[in-house]
Amino acid sequence: MSAATRLGDTRVVVVGGGFAGLYAARALRTAPAQVTVVDRQNHHLFQPLLYQVATAVLSPADIASPLRWLLRRQRDTSILLGEATSVDTTRRTVQLDGGQELPYDYLILATGARHSYFGKPEWESLAPGLKDLDDAREMRRRWLLAFEEAERTDDPEDRRAALTFVIVGGGPTGVELAGMLPEVARFSMRDDFRRFDIDQTRVILLEGGPRILATYPPDLSARAQRDLESLGVEVRTGAYVTGIERDHVCVGAERIPTKTVFWAAGNEASPLGRSLGVPVDRTGRVLVEPDLSIPGHPEVFVCGDLAAVKNSAGSWVPAVAPAALQMGKWAARNVKRLLAGEQTQPFHYRNKGDLATIGRHRGIAYVGGVKLTGPLAWLFWLFVHIMYLAGFRNRLLVLVEWAFAYFTYQRGARIITDRDWEGTGRSL
Amino acid sequence: MSAATRLGDTRVVVVGGGFAGLYAARALRTAPAQVTVVDRQNHHLFQPLLYQVATAVLSPADIASPLRWLLRRQRDTSILLGEATSVDTTRRTVQLDGGQELPYDYLILATGARHSYFGKPEWESLAPGLKDLDDAREMRRRWLLAFEEAERTDDPEDRRAALTFVIVGGGPTGVELAGMLPEVARFSMRDDFRRFDIDQTRVILLEGGPRILATYPPDLSARAQRDLESLGVEVRTGAYVTGIERDHVCVGAERIPTKTVFWAAGNEASPLGRSLGVPVDRTGRVLVEPDLSIPGHPEVFVCGDLAAVKNSAGSWVPAVAPAALQMGKWAARNVKRLLAGEQTQPFHYRNKGDLATIGRHRGIAYVGGVKLTGPLAWLFWLFVHIMYLAGFRNRLLVLVEWAFAYFTYQRGARIITDRDWEGTGRSL
Repeated sequence: MSAATRLGDTRVVVVGGGFAGLYAARALRTAPAQVTVVDRQNHHLFQPLLYQVATAVLSPADIASPLRWLLRRQRDTSILLGEATSVDTTRRTVQLDGGQELPYDYLILATGARHSYFGKPEWESLAPGLKDLDDAREMRRRWLLAFEEAERTDDPEDRRAALTFVIVGGGPTGVELAGMLPEVARFSMRDDFRRFDIDQTRVILLEGGPRILATYPPDLSARAQRDLESLGVEVRTGAYVTGIERDHVCVGAERIPTKTVFWAAGNEASPLGRSLGVPVDRTGRVLVEPDLSIPGHPEVFVCGDLAAVKNSAGSWVPAVAPAALQMGKWAARNVKRLLAGEQTQPFHYRNKGDLATIGRHRGIAYVGGVKLTGPLAWLFWLFVHIMYLAGFRNRLLVLVEWAFAYFTYQRGARIITDRDWEGTGRSL
Repeated sequence: MSAATRLGDTRVVVVGGGFAGLYAARALRTAPAQVTVVDRQNHHLFQPLLYQVATAVLSPADIASPLRWLLRRQRDTSILLGEATSVDTTRRTVQLDGGQELPYDYLILATGARHSYFGKPEWESLAPGLKDLDDAREMRRRWLLAFEEAERTDDPEDRRAALTFVIVGGGPTGVELAGMLPEVARFSMRDDFRRFDIDQTRVILLEGGPRILATYPPDLSARAQRDLESLGVEVRTGAYVTGIERDHVCVGAERIPTKTVFWAAGNEASPLGRSLGVPVDRTGRVLVEPDLSIPGHPEVFVCGDLAAVKNSAGSWVPAVAPAALQMGKWAARNVKRLLAGEQTQPFHYRNKGDLATIGRHRGIAYVGGVKLTGPLAWLFWLFVHIMYLAGFRNRLLVLVEWAFAYFTYQRGARIITDRDWEGTGRSL
């Protein structure tokens, strides 16, 4: 009896190998169907640690695993490396780059979001965001090269601009980047340079709203700001960025000379959502039904950062990894229910809490109404992430590497490998 | 008393941060001079393990360390990230990209070699070589994507070509690549694909000469060939490549359909050597004096793969890491002798032996007239490399990672991060 006979001809296609897509594919292991996972990348990424790659604490390989490896035991699941360009819900096909078409009986769409620049796409090359490993490597490259430029230049103003790093956006990503940069500079680059003092490094965090970490309780926001300031970060709230150029950032009338700007200020859902022909919200997220399917097409489910769905309290489910993971699993279960001739069930979001780190041994956590700060929150963060990482990378190896990275601040991750570093438009 | 007063104004410039340049800079630690090291890359690379990055066994960060970190304790040594474009021996300056000029009193030039294509530069994009981390990442990317293409295509001939890997050149690099590829495929990708059998992978090693590893004794060459064949590698000697196209390689009249060709067949010295205005050999290597200086300029030394020098037996010193390391140290010592008003001394090469691995637990070694083969040679190789790596990366960490890589064949290293993988000209 061949696999095809045993399973029938039911085809489930999962687009996206992030938290939502991966956990959907895993939950489909026991489904009587042929599952195909499509992704542009060959790996699943542990996105919550991406800022550590961007700041040269971890290496790309530490936080990514090949999708084929993660799904290797599911013999009825195949993986295609390719980019889905649109969905035809009438013909029930997914279009891939290169013209290939993938027919489906059930579709789980989980292509996530990219950063958005509020109608200023020209800012993207000047202020890269942080969504995938290439982004992280680009940030790392820029920030390491800025120090090289400071060492090479003879002009004090040039050096000052090279040593000034501006982060736009005071959400968790902006806060984690801002907290890590001064610590890595101070510890791991302490003895590296001869022509300037590493303590001249300035990190400025710009937030347009009245406080950073706006989704946390106000006292935790205030604490995070104090923690950042104690690390030497200049935190500016109510600071709207009005212009970004190669050598400065404008905040209203003020001009901050800087050669390195990072973007952590806004997201926009994957354009694939719009191709479904159903209503989307302002950022392009698909307004899904309570069971995560789309209006008029009970065979199409959308999850992760691409889906706009409300929790039982009537507020939007946040675009965080645990929510994506839960949605992915849920969509897969609903597909299995349909395959078994049952009704789908509405999705319920279980909020496991909010967690962010500040520098290398402090954190902010808000979990089940309990507030944690300082080293305790950091230890909690470490514990949660090591638990999650299990199954992706070996726990021991990650612990050893982190221990090295944290306590010695070393080397391996501080490598610039892009041959075309001259091509950044820098004078360097 | 400032450093400048204490040291006088003597400036030593080292160009290149490979084995020769790094060990020259280290040996200059005790020299009464201001030392400047210039390199295009911010890291020193442990080149003998590069083929393990290319075959997705190790990650780039495992075999590279930032130059600043390696030289951090030498307070009188500074590092400039930049590309030296030429040397003016009359004015005693090194020209950098961007127009900057670096004056020197003593110069140590160690900019190494690149692969050469025997007058066929158009082959470079079709058959990348292996000299730096970008090369290794490019090889890894191509070889991982070939399997993805095999999984995605519906055409059996296309799939066969995608699963055929051709390596041109039977020296140590070619042999090590050829031995590792089938093992990594067989072990680490065993469960990865659904539409073809991984045992269909073909690896073909083409050598123009009568035997592989031509610098080894003939019986060791024969043993290496048998070992490769037992791993499933097709070894062809006397096989001149006459053409490389996107979908095939020509060997005389024969046409081998393949989508992935790697180049390990020839080297050419850095063009900087020619700018010295002294005689060079056919491959551009500078014909140095016995003390490694150049004719007419006792203040300029050339070492590593850029230098052509004879050993005491009258044969050329080989272009290998231990030779480069010895030359770098020697040139630095000669600079120190000159600074102390002494005579320079002629360089003597101490041959520490030849070593190559074949697959994941066999090797070939020829050390002090003693021949080792099989697992014993491999263990010897492992011991030597771990000893060398000490001081670059922590020994424990490297051992742990290798143990993982070797015994589990896993994941981290198998990540494709280049956003533009569509841009390879593949139909993929």
